[in-house]
Amino acid sequence: MLSINNIITEIARNFNMRMRKKKHGAERISACSEYFIPEGTEINDFPIELEIGCGKGSFISGMSKRYPEKKFIAMERVSDVILLAAERIKSEEINNVKFIIGDARNLKEYFPAASVERLYLNFSDPWPKKGYAKRRLTHRGFLELYKEILVPNGEIVFKTDNIGLFEFSLEEFTAAGFKLRELTYDLHNSEYNDNNIVTEYEKNFSEKGFKINRVVAYL
Amino acid sequence: MLSINNIITEIARNFNMRMRKKKHGAERISACSEYFIPEGTEINDFPIELEIGCGKGSFISGMSKRYPEKKFIAMERVSDVILLAAERIKSEEINNVKFIIGDARNLKEYFPAASVERLYLNFSDPWPKKGYAKRRLTHRGFLELYKEILVPNGEIVFKTDNIGLFEFSLEEFTAAGFKLRELTYDLHNSEYNDNNIVTEYEKNFSEKGFKINRVVAYL
Repeated sequence: MLSINNIITEIARNFNMRMRKKKHGAERISACSEYFIPEGTEINDFPIELEIGCGKGSFISGMSKRYPEKKFIAMERVSDVILLAAERIKSEEINNVKFIIGDARNLKEYFPAASVERLYLNFSDPWPKKGYAKRRLTHRGFLELYKEILVPNGEIVFKTDNIGLFEFSLEEFTAAGFKLRELTYDLHNSEYNDNNIVTEYEKNFSEKGFKINRVVAYL
Repeated sequence: MLSINNIITEIARNFNMRMRKKKHGAERISACSEYFIPEGTEINDFPIELEIGCGKGSFISGMSKRYPEKKFIAMERVSDVILLAAERIKSEEINNVKFIIGDARNLKEYFPAASVERLYLNFSDPWPKKGYAKRRLTHRGFLELYKEILVPNGEIVFKTDNIGLFEFSLEEFTAAGFKLRELTYDLHNSEYNDNNIVTEYEKNFSEKGFKINRVVAYL
Protein backbone atom coordinates (compact mmCIF):
# COMPACT_ATOMS: atom_id res chain seq x y z
CA MET A 1 0.00 0.00 0.00
CA LEU A 2 2.97 2.31 -0.59
CA SER A 3 1.22 3.66 -3.59
CA ILE A 4 2.59 6.85 -5.03
CA ASN A 5 5.91 6.56 -3.21
CA ASN A 6 6.66 3.32 -4.98
CA ILE A 7 5.57 4.68 -8.27
CA ILE A 8 7.76 7.73 -7.82
CA THR A 9 10.73 5.51 -6.97
CA GLU A 10 10.16 3.51 -10.12
CA ILE A 11 9.81 6.62 -12.18
CA ALA A 12 12.92 8.11 -10.63
CA ARG A 13 14.87 5.05 -11.67
CA ASN A 14 13.74 5.40 -15.24
CA PHE A 15 14.26 9.09 -14.96
CA ASN A 16 17.89 8.62 -14.12
CA MET A 17 18.39 6.10 -16.88
CA ARG A 18 16.67 7.90 -19.69
CA MET A 19 16.58 11.46 -18.54
CA ARG A 20 16.66 12.95 -21.98
CA LYS A 21 13.83 10.78 -23.17
CA LYS A 22 11.20 11.57 -20.60
CA LYS A 23 11.73 14.62 -18.48
CA HIS A 24 9.83 15.12 -15.29
CA GLY A 25 8.39 11.59 -15.32
CA ALA A 26 7.69 11.55 -11.59
CA GLU A 27 5.86 14.84 -11.66
CA ARG A 28 3.88 13.84 -14.69
CA ILE A 29 2.81 10.55 -13.13
CA SER A 30 1.81 12.35 -9.95
CA ALA A 31 -0.37 14.60 -12.04
CA CYS A 32 -2.51 11.63 -13.06
CA SER A 33 -2.10 9.52 -9.96
CA GLU A 34 -5.84 8.88 -9.76
CA TYR A 35 -5.44 6.58 -12.76
CA PHE A 36 -2.85 4.32 -11.13
CA ILE A 37 -3.54 1.38 -8.88
CA PRO A 38 -0.87 1.36 -6.15
CA GLU A 39 1.45 -1.64 -5.98
CA GLY A 40 -0.02 -4.57 -4.12
CA THR A 41 -3.59 -3.24 -3.96
CA GLU A 42 -6.10 -6.04 -4.36
CA ILE A 43 -8.84 -5.14 -6.80
CA ASN A 44 -12.29 -5.43 -5.24
CA ASP A 45 -14.46 -3.98 -7.98
CA PHE A 46 -14.85 -6.62 -10.67
CA PRO A 47 -15.40 -8.30 -13.14
CA ILE A 48 -12.91 -6.37 -15.19
CA GLU A 49 -11.26 -6.60 -18.58
CA LEU A 50 -7.49 -6.60 -18.38
CA GLU A 51 -4.84 -5.74 -20.95
CA ILE A 52 -1.32 -6.92 -20.21
CA GLY A 53 1.33 -4.86 -21.98
CA CYS A 54 -0.78 -1.84 -22.93
CA GLY A 55 2.05 0.27 -24.38
CA LYS A 56 0.91 3.81 -25.10
CA GLY A 57 -2.71 2.84 -24.53
CA SER A 58 -4.31 3.11 -27.95
CA PHE A 59 -6.12 -0.23 -27.58
CA ILE A 60 -7.39 0.37 -24.05
CA SER A 61 -8.47 3.88 -25.02
CA GLY A 62 -10.49 2.54 -27.94
CA MET A 63 -12.04 -0.25 -25.87
CA SER A 64 -13.01 1.94 -22.95
CA LYS A 65 -14.75 4.41 -25.24
CA ARG A 66 -16.56 1.67 -27.10
CA TYR A 67 -17.70 -0.06 -23.90
CA PRO A 68 -18.23 2.73 -21.35
CA GLU A 69 -20.24 0.39 -19.10
CA LYS A 70 -17.25 -1.96 -18.61
CA LYS A 71 -14.30 -1.61 -16.24
CA PHE A 72 -10.82 -1.88 -17.74
CA ILE A 73 -7.37 -2.24 -16.22
CA ALA A 74 -4.21 -1.95 -18.29
CA MET A 75 -0.85 -3.23 -17.10
CA GLU A 76 2.60 -2.33 -18.40
CA ARG A 77 6.10 -2.80 -17.04
CA VAL A 78 7.68 0.26 -18.63
CA SER A 79 6.65 3.31 -16.62
CA ASP A 80 7.74 5.80 -19.29
CA VAL A 81 5.32 4.17 -21.66
CA ILE A 82 2.38 3.63 -19.33
CA LEU A 83 2.69 7.30 -18.37
CA LEU A 84 1.80 8.24 -21.93
CA ALA A 85 -1.19 5.89 -21.79
CA ALA A 86 -2.42 7.43 -18.54
CA GLU A 87 -1.97 10.98 -19.85
CA ARG A 88 -3.94 10.03 -22.93
CA ILE A 89 -6.81 8.53 -20.90
CA LYS A 90 -6.86 11.60 -18.67
CA SER A 91 -6.93 14.03 -21.58
CA GLU A 92 -9.78 12.03 -23.14
CA GLU A 93 -11.68 12.24 -19.84
CA ILE A 94 -12.18 8.48 -19.76
CA ASN A 95 -13.21 7.20 -16.35
CA ASN A 96 -13.43 3.43 -16.74
CA VAL A 97 -9.71 2.62 -17.06
CA LYS A 98 -7.06 2.19 -14.38
CA PHE A 99 -3.39 1.37 -14.79
CA ILE A 100 -0.89 -0.88 -13.03
CA ILE A 101 2.85 -0.40 -13.43
CA GLY A 102 4.09 -3.91 -12.99
CA ASP A 103 5.03 -7.36 -14.18
CA ALA A 104 2.52 -10.02 -15.22
CA ARG A 105 4.27 -12.45 -12.86
CA ASN A 106 2.74 -10.51 -9.99
CA LEU A 107 -0.83 -10.57 -11.28
CA LYS A 108 -2.16 -12.38 -8.24
CA GLU A 109 -1.09 -9.53 -5.98
CA TYR A 110 -3.76 -7.44 -7.68
CA PHE A 111 -6.38 -9.83 -8.99
CA PRO A 112 -8.31 -12.26 -6.82
CA ALA A 113 -9.64 -15.53 -8.24
CA ALA A 114 -12.38 -15.18 -10.86
CA SER A 115 -12.05 -11.40 -11.14
CA VAL A 116 -11.09 -11.05 -14.81
CA GLU A 117 -13.67 -11.60 -17.52
CA ARG A 118 -11.45 -11.08 -20.52
CA LEU A 119 -7.70 -10.71 -20.88
CA TYR A 120 -6.09 -8.98 -23.85
CA LEU A 121 -2.58 -9.61 -25.11
CA ASN A 122 -1.71 -7.32 -27.99
CA PHE A 123 1.61 -7.64 -29.82
CA SER A 124 3.38 -9.08 -26.82
CA ASP A 125 7.16 -9.33 -26.87
CA PRO A 126 7.95 -12.51 -28.86
CA TRP A 127 11.18 -13.33 -26.95
CA PRO A 128 12.32 -15.24 -30.02
CA LYS A 129 15.25 -17.05 -28.43
CA LYS A 130 14.25 -20.48 -27.19
CA GLY A 131 15.94 -19.93 -23.84
CA TYR A 132 13.57 -17.08 -23.11
CA ALA A 133 10.36 -18.99 -23.93
CA LYS A 134 9.21 -18.76 -20.32
CA ARG A 135 9.07 -14.98 -20.60
CA ARG A 136 6.51 -15.09 -23.40
CA LEU A 137 3.15 -13.99 -22.05
CA THR A 138 1.50 -17.05 -23.59
CA HIS A 139 3.91 -19.54 -22.03
CA ARG A 140 1.98 -22.20 -20.12
CA GLY A 141 3.40 -20.83 -16.88
CA PHE A 142 1.54 -17.57 -17.50
CA LEU A 143 -1.53 -19.40 -18.80
CA GLU A 144 -1.85 -21.24 -15.49
CA LEU A 145 -1.66 -17.90 -13.73
CA TYR A 146 -4.34 -16.43 -16.00
CA LYS A 147 -6.62 -19.41 -15.32
CA GLU A 148 -6.58 -18.54 -11.63
CA ILE A 149 -7.74 -14.96 -12.09
CA LEU A 150 -10.14 -15.55 -15.00
CA VAL A 151 -13.85 -16.13 -14.36
CA PRO A 152 -15.10 -19.67 -15.20
CA ASN A 153 -16.10 -18.66 -18.74
CA GLY A 154 -13.23 -16.24 -19.11
CA GLU A 155 -11.25 -15.75 -22.28
CA ILE A 156 -7.97 -14.47 -23.62
CA VAL A 157 -7.92 -12.41 -26.81
CA PHE A 158 -4.47 -12.66 -28.33
CA LYS A 159 -3.21 -10.66 -31.29
CA THR A 160 0.27 -10.63 -32.83
CA ASP A 161 2.08 -9.99 -36.07
CA ASN A 162 4.78 -12.49 -35.07
CA ILE A 163 4.02 -15.87 -36.62
CA GLY A 164 6.56 -17.67 -34.43
CA LEU A 165 4.93 -16.35 -31.28
CA PHE A 166 1.49 -17.17 -32.68
CA GLU A 167 2.43 -20.78 -33.40
CA PHE A 168 4.00 -21.14 -29.97
CA SER A 169 0.90 -19.64 -28.39
CA LEU A 170 -1.55 -21.97 -30.14
CA GLU A 171 0.49 -24.93 -28.90
CA GLU A 172 0.52 -23.52 -25.38
CA PHE A 173 -3.17 -22.58 -25.28
CA THR A 174 -4.28 -26.04 -26.34
CA ALA A 175 -1.75 -27.78 -24.08
CA ALA A 176 -3.12 -25.77 -21.14
CA GLY A 177 -6.68 -26.88 -21.96
CA PHE A 178 -7.96 -23.67 -23.52
CA LYS A 179 -10.41 -24.03 -26.38
CA LEU A 180 -9.98 -21.79 -29.42
CA ARG A 181 -12.36 -19.76 -31.54
CA GLU A 182 -12.10 -17.01 -34.14
CA LEU A 183 -8.65 -18.25 -35.07
CA THR A 184 -7.18 -16.35 -38.00
CA TYR A 185 -3.76 -15.85 -39.56
CA ASP A 186 -4.94 -12.74 -41.37
CA LEU A 187 -7.29 -10.78 -39.16
CA HIS A 188 -7.77 -7.82 -41.48
CA ASN A 189 -8.97 -10.06 -44.31
CA SER A 190 -10.96 -12.42 -42.11
CA GLU A 191 -14.58 -12.80 -41.09
CA TYR A 192 -13.62 -11.63 -37.56
CA ASN A 193 -12.40 -8.13 -38.38
CA ASP A 194 -15.59 -6.19 -37.69
CA ASN A 195 -14.97 -5.37 -34.03
CA ASN A 196 -11.21 -5.04 -34.22
CA ILE A 197 -9.56 -2.03 -32.62
CA VAL A 198 -6.43 -1.28 -34.63
CA THR A 199 -3.46 -0.15 -32.52
CA GLU A 200 -0.77 2.18 -33.86
CA TYR A 201 1.68 -0.71 -34.00
CA GLU A 202 -0.84 -2.87 -35.83
CA LYS A 203 -1.58 -0.14 -38.36
CA ASN A 204 2.11 0.28 -39.16
CA PHE A 205 2.75 -3.42 -39.57
CA SER A 206 -0.37 -4.07 -41.51
CA GLU A 207 0.40 -1.26 -43.95
CA LYS A 208 3.79 -2.83 -44.57
CA GLY A 209 2.04 -5.99 -45.68
CA PHE A 210 2.45 -8.03 -42.51
CA LYS A 211 -0.48 -10.19 -41.55
CA ILE A 212 -2.05 -9.94 -38.13
CA ASN A 213 -2.78 -13.20 -36.32
CA ARG A 214 -5.52 -13.40 -33.73
CA VAL A 215 -7.29 -16.02 -31.67
CA VAL A 216 -9.70 -16.15 -28.75
CA ALA A 217 -8.73 -18.79 -26.17
CA TYR A 218 -11.47 -19.67 -23.72
CA LEU A 219 -12.00 -21.94 -20.76
CA MET B 1 -24.32 -52.79 -54.86
CA LEU B 2 -22.58 -53.19 -58.22
CA SER B 3 -19.43 -54.00 -56.37
CA ILE B 4 -16.64 -55.59 -58.34
CA ASN B 5 -18.06 -54.54 -61.71
CA ASN B 6 -17.76 -50.89 -60.82
CA ILE B 7 -14.33 -51.35 -59.42
CA ILE B 8 -13.25 -53.11 -62.56
CA THR B 9 -14.66 -50.30 -64.70
CA GLU B 10 -12.73 -47.79 -62.64
CA ILE B 11 -9.59 -49.83 -62.88
CA ALA B 12 -10.07 -50.23 -66.61
CA ARG B 13 -10.21 -46.49 -67.00
CA ASN B 14 -6.97 -46.04 -65.13
CA PHE B 15 -5.59 -49.02 -66.96
CA ASN B 16 -6.18 -47.35 -70.32
CA MET B 17 -4.72 -44.06 -69.14
CA ARG B 18 -1.60 -45.37 -67.50
CA MET B 19 -1.19 -48.78 -68.96
CA ARG B 20 2.55 -48.86 -68.57
CA LYS B 21 2.42 -47.84 -64.99
CA LYS B 22 0.15 -50.52 -63.59
CA LYS B 23 -0.36 -53.56 -65.70
CA HIS B 24 -3.22 -55.91 -65.00
CA GLY B 25 -4.82 -53.56 -62.44
CA ALA B 26 -8.26 -55.10 -62.76
CA GLU B 27 -6.95 -58.61 -62.28
CA ARG B 28 -4.84 -57.56 -59.33
CA ILE B 29 -7.74 -55.83 -57.63
CA SER B 30 -9.92 -58.88 -58.21
CA ALA B 31 -7.26 -60.95 -56.49
CA CYS B 32 -7.81 -59.07 -53.25
CA SER B 33 -11.46 -58.23 -53.70
CA GLU B 34 -12.29 -59.40 -50.17
CA TYR B 35 -10.54 -56.24 -48.93
CA PHE B 36 -12.72 -53.83 -50.89
CA ILE B 37 -16.07 -52.47 -49.83
CA PRO B 38 -18.23 -52.24 -52.94
CA GLU B 39 -19.46 -48.81 -54.03
CA GLY B 40 -22.56 -47.67 -52.17
CA THR B 41 -22.43 -50.35 -49.47
CA GLU B 42 -23.53 -48.95 -46.13
CA ILE B 43 -21.24 -50.06 -43.34
CA ASN B 44 -23.08 -51.83 -40.54
CA ASP B 45 -20.20 -53.01 -38.39
CA PHE B 46 -18.97 -50.01 -36.39
CA PRO B 47 -17.52 -47.97 -34.66
CA ILE B 48 -14.62 -47.81 -37.04
CA GLU B 49 -11.51 -45.73 -37.55
CA LEU B 50 -11.31 -44.17 -40.98
CA GLU B 51 -8.39 -42.85 -43.00
CA ILE B 52 -9.22 -40.62 -45.95
CA GLY B 53 -6.49 -40.58 -48.58
CA CYS B 54 -4.55 -43.66 -47.50
CA GLY B 55 -2.08 -43.67 -50.38
CA LYS B 56 -0.03 -46.88 -50.44
CA GLY B 57 -1.29 -47.82 -47.00
CA SER B 58 1.75 -47.55 -44.74
CA PHE B 59 -0.19 -45.67 -42.04
CA ILE B 60 -3.21 -47.95 -42.04
CA SER B 61 -0.96 -50.99 -42.06
CA GLY B 62 0.90 -49.71 -38.99
CA MET B 63 -2.29 -48.77 -37.16
CA SER B 64 -4.08 -52.04 -37.85
CA LYS B 65 -1.13 -54.05 -36.54
CA ARG B 66 -0.80 -51.89 -33.45
CA TYR B 67 -4.53 -52.07 -32.67
CA PRO B 68 -5.67 -55.51 -33.86
CA GLU B 69 -8.91 -55.21 -31.84
CA LYS B 70 -10.07 -52.17 -33.81
CA LYS B 71 -11.75 -52.01 -37.19
CA PHE B 72 -10.20 -49.76 -39.84
CA ILE B 73 -11.38 -48.51 -43.19
CA ALA B 74 -9.10 -46.67 -45.61
CA MET B 75 -10.39 -44.60 -48.47
CA GLU B 76 -8.51 -43.41 -51.55
CA ARG B 77 -9.61 -41.98 -54.89
CA VAL B 78 -6.73 -43.28 -56.96
CA SER B 79 -7.34 -46.97 -57.64
CA ASP B 80 -3.77 -47.64 -58.81
CA VAL B 81 -2.55 -46.49 -55.45
CA ILE B 82 -5.15 -48.12 -53.21
CA LEU B 83 -4.43 -51.37 -55.02
CA LEU B 84 -0.90 -51.28 -53.62
CA ALA B 85 -2.32 -50.65 -50.15
CA ALA B 86 -4.70 -53.60 -50.44
CA GLU B 87 -1.97 -55.92 -51.74
CA ARG B 88 0.20 -54.90 -48.84
CA ILE B 89 -2.52 -55.58 -46.28
CA LYS B 90 -3.22 -58.95 -47.89
CA SER B 91 0.43 -59.95 -47.92
CA GLU B 92 0.71 -58.98 -44.25
CA GLU B 93 -2.36 -61.13 -43.48
CA ILE B 94 -4.07 -58.25 -41.72
CA ASN B 95 -7.80 -58.83 -41.26
CA ASN B 96 -9.07 -55.63 -39.62
CA VAL B 97 -8.77 -53.27 -42.59
CA LYS B 98 -11.11 -52.73 -45.53
CA PHE B 99 -10.75 -50.31 -48.43
CA ILE B 100 -13.04 -48.00 -50.32
CA ILE B 101 -12.13 -46.64 -53.76
CA GLY B 102 -13.91 -43.34 -53.74
CA ASP B 103 -14.22 -39.66 -53.06
CA ALA B 104 -14.67 -38.15 -49.59
CA ARG B 105 -17.65 -36.20 -50.92
CA ASN B 106 -19.56 -39.49 -51.01
CA LEU B 107 -18.75 -40.53 -47.43
CA LYS B 108 -22.40 -40.65 -46.41
CA GLU B 109 -23.10 -43.36 -48.97
CA TYR B 110 -20.94 -45.64 -46.85
CA PHE B 111 -21.04 -44.32 -43.31
CA PRO B 112 -24.22 -43.90 -41.28
CA ALA B 113 -24.46 -41.22 -38.59
CA ALA B 114 -22.21 -41.75 -35.56
CA SER B 115 -20.32 -44.68 -37.10
CA VAL B 116 -16.78 -43.27 -37.13
CA GLU B 117 -14.83 -42.96 -33.91
CA ARG B 118 -11.71 -41.40 -35.31
CA LEU B 119 -10.87 -39.96 -38.70
CA TYR B 120 -7.29 -39.69 -39.97
CA LEU B 121 -6.10 -37.21 -42.57
CA ASN B 122 -2.44 -37.72 -43.38
CA PHE B 123 -0.61 -35.39 -45.76
CA SER B 124 -3.75 -34.49 -47.66
CA ASP B 125 -3.44 -32.65 -50.95
CA PRO B 126 -2.96 -28.95 -50.01
CA TRP B 127 -4.72 -27.59 -53.14
CA PRO B 128 -2.67 -24.41 -52.68
CA LYS B 129 -4.60 -22.20 -55.09
CA LYS B 130 -7.28 -20.21 -53.32
CA GLY B 131 -9.88 -21.12 -55.93
CA TYR B 132 -9.54 -24.77 -54.96
CA ALA B 133 -9.93 -24.26 -51.20
CA LYS B 134 -13.19 -26.22 -51.22
CA ARG B 135 -11.32 -29.33 -52.33
CA ARG B 136 -9.09 -29.35 -49.24
CA LEU B 137 -10.17 -32.19 -46.98
CA THR B 138 -10.26 -29.80 -44.01
CA HIS B 139 -12.49 -27.23 -45.70
CA ARG B 140 -15.53 -26.52 -43.55
CA GLY B 141 -17.73 -28.19 -46.16
CA PHE B 142 -15.95 -31.49 -45.47
CA LEU B 143 -15.85 -30.82 -41.73
CA GLU B 144 -19.64 -30.60 -41.67
CA LEU B 145 -19.78 -33.92 -43.49
CA TYR B 146 -17.38 -35.49 -40.98
CA LYS B 147 -19.48 -34.22 -38.08
CA GLU B 148 -22.42 -36.23 -39.37
CA ILE B 149 -20.58 -39.54 -39.47
CA LEU B 150 -18.46 -39.05 -36.34
CA VAL B 151 -19.64 -40.37 -32.98
CA PRO B 152 -20.51 -37.67 -30.38
CA ASN B 153 -17.00 -37.70 -28.90
CA GLY B 154 -15.35 -38.36 -32.24
CA GLU B 155 -12.11 -36.82 -33.37
CA ILE B 156 -10.04 -36.00 -36.41
CA VAL B 157 -6.29 -36.58 -36.34
CA PHE B 158 -4.70 -34.35 -38.95
CA LYS B 159 -1.05 -34.43 -40.01
CA THR B 160 0.68 -32.41 -42.73
CA ASP B 161 4.06 -31.02 -43.71
CA ASN B 162 2.34 -28.13 -45.53
CA ILE B 163 2.20 -25.10 -43.25
CA GLY B 164 -0.29 -23.28 -45.47
CA LEU B 165 -2.70 -26.19 -45.30
CA PHE B 166 -2.14 -26.50 -41.55
CA GLU B 167 -2.95 -22.84 -40.94
CA PHE B 168 -6.02 -23.06 -43.12
CA SER B 169 -7.11 -26.20 -41.28
CA LEU B 170 -6.78 -24.69 -37.80
CA GLU B 171 -8.95 -21.79 -38.92
CA GLU B 172 -11.51 -24.20 -40.38
CA PHE B 173 -11.56 -26.60 -37.43
CA THR B 174 -12.21 -23.82 -34.93
CA ALA B 175 -14.73 -22.07 -37.20
CA ALA B 176 -16.64 -25.37 -37.45
CA GLY B 177 -16.74 -25.69 -33.66
CA PHE B 178 -14.07 -28.37 -33.21
CA LYS B 179 -11.89 -28.11 -30.13
CA LEU B 180 -8.17 -28.71 -30.51
CA ARG B 181 -5.61 -30.69 -28.55
CA GLU B 182 -2.07 -31.96 -29.06
CA LEU B 183 -1.44 -29.10 -31.47
CA THR B 184 2.15 -29.02 -32.68
CA TYR B 185 4.11 -27.42 -35.51
CA ASP B 186 6.95 -29.88 -35.06
CA LEU B 187 5.59 -33.30 -34.21
CA HIS B 188 8.91 -35.15 -34.22
CA ASN B 189 10.35 -32.80 -31.60
CA SER B 190 7.17 -32.48 -29.56
CA GLU B 191 5.75 -34.06 -26.45
CA TYR B 192 3.17 -35.88 -28.64
CA ASN B 193 5.52 -37.96 -30.77
CA ASP B 194 5.43 -41.20 -28.78
CA ASN B 195 2.55 -42.89 -30.59
CA ASN B 196 3.22 -41.49 -34.02
CA ILE B 197 3.23 -43.85 -36.98
CA VAL B 198 5.64 -42.43 -39.54
CA THR B 199 4.52 -42.84 -43.14
CA GLU B 200 6.96 -43.16 -46.04
CA TYR B 201 6.10 -39.65 -47.18
CA GLU B 202 6.58 -38.28 -43.68
CA LYS B 203 9.95 -39.99 -43.32
CA ASN B 204 11.20 -38.45 -46.57
CA PHE B 205 10.05 -34.96 -45.73
CA SER B 206 11.22 -35.08 -42.19
CA GLU B 207 14.68 -36.25 -43.24
CA LYS B 208 14.89 -33.25 -45.57
CA GLY B 209 14.37 -30.98 -42.58
CA PHE B 210 10.68 -30.22 -43.05
CA LYS B 211 8.64 -30.02 -39.90
CA ILE B 212 5.52 -32.10 -39.48
CA ASN B 213 2.43 -30.34 -38.15
CA ARG B 214 -0.25 -32.28 -36.32
CA VAL B 215 -3.41 -31.58 -34.36
CA VAL B 216 -6.31 -33.54 -32.93
CA ALA B 217 -9.67 -31.82 -33.53
CA TYR B 218 -12.53 -33.14 -31.41
CA LEU B 219 -16.23 -32.53 -30.94
